[in-house]
Amino acid sequence: MGVTERRAREREEMRTKILDAARNLFATQGYDAVTLRKVADCIEYCPATIYKYFSDKDEMVRALCEEDIAAMMAAFRPSMAELTPLERLRSFGRAFINMGLEQPNHFRLMFMTPLLSPDDSLFVEKHANPETDSYGLFQTVVQECIDTGVFREDLTDPEFIAQTLWAGLHGVISLHIALGTDPNINWRPVRERAIYLHELMIAGMSRNPAPVIAPKFEKAAATV
Amino acid sequence: MGVTERRAREREEMRTKILDAARNLFATQGYDAVTLRKVADCIEYCPATIYKYFSDKDEMVRALCEEDIAAMMAAFRPSMAELTPLERLRSFGRAFINMGLEQPNHFRLMFMTPLLSPDDSLFVEKHANPETDSYGLFQTVVQECIDTGVFREDLTDPEFIAQTLWAGLHGVISLHIALGTDPNINWRPVRERAIYLHELMIAGMSRNPAPVIAPKFEKAAATV
Repeated sequence: MGVTERRAREREEMRTKILDAARNLFATQGYDAVTLRKVADCIEYCPATIYKYFSDKDEMVRALCEEDIAAMMAAFRPSMAELTPLERLRSFGRAFINMGLEQPNHFRLMFMTPLLSPDDSLFVEKHANPETDSYGLFQTVVQECIDTGVFREDLTDPEFIAQTLWAGLHGVISLHIALGTDPNINWRPVRERAIYLHELMIAGMSRNPAPVIAPKFEKAAATV
Repeated sequence: MGVTERRAREREEMRTKILDAARNLFATQGYDAVTLRKVADCIEYCPATIYKYFSDKDEMVRALCEEDIAAMMAAFRPSMAELTPLERLRSFGRAFINMGLEQPNHFRLMFMTPLLSPDDSLFVEKHANPETDSYGLFQTVVQECIDTGVFREDLTDPEFIAQTLWAGLHGVISLHIALGTDPNINWRPVRERAIYLHELMIAGMSRNPAPVIAPKFEKAAATV
């Protein structure tokens, strides 16, 4: 690898490091509490280094949002390779669950306490471009399921179906992120709950539902 | 009404006014950004007035949490008067939906961005006392449904069932609070989506499910 390539790679790595530190700070301390100086402190660089990458907080926030949008699309894209619309729908849900549980800070900043106003031009552009419009991609899969008779006859509205499936999974993940450490609640494993609810929703909407069996957990934990 | 009663009532009204202003500020600006002075400015009183009610921010936050816990219990209690366990379960869900949609700031501060750590003694006491333990009350209803054969045979764990139903409704409400103003998404009416998901989950878990039919919306809005 030549010097130019190495430098470009190092620059990209540094940029990612800054954005990861910023994402963590925004997710844990909120938008207002974060400054470029705090981000610099966090990764033990001087603020001048950060300014080589981002001119101000707003630019950093926008870069963060763009990176998170790209990461979400990258997580969803493999689902489109599944053979049937129903399998694509299932795979989409599991990708969403994985993303939320493995990248809770991404999830928090995209869906729970968004960093930018939803009418920001960044999101308008996101939704206008098929390369970044994850909600649009999901709706396409839902429409394919409608067209191939996956859903019951009363379910003809792709917006309603997509929003219902999204909201259900959003609930399991966001409640886990917000209150999953609550020691007063005897939480059952979050991934099993998410997959169960996803399958329950799909079965409830399906013309020919597959049976959905509840997972079993250790008896010792099943106290009331 | 005597002078003493009037004074007590006025004091209670003033306290409620302060807490409502504080709740609004905490929900919109986050924990760190709020001071007693800001709360005073918000209701156009001098800070000294606030100090007659709360000695510091921590005391105010605790009073707020206690009030919100009491409000939630008050919202759920009428559901216990329903005749059958299944009707109590249905009613509980609808009370939760109503609370979330009508009091989004309460909802946000209880379930999305909690003001106190979940292992705070206030919550330990809340869960230990049947008068304030809303999760415990909900679990009681779920257990009654298990005992009377409402649920399928594979569903025997009240924690799993309660957490699944809670998370589903949490998702519809919290997504609405966080992104319901997103102009890039053609949102369907949130209350209809919440009730539909609630009925869909109950039917999917039931031994003898009632049919769940999707609501219909204006054709003009049903664009993809």
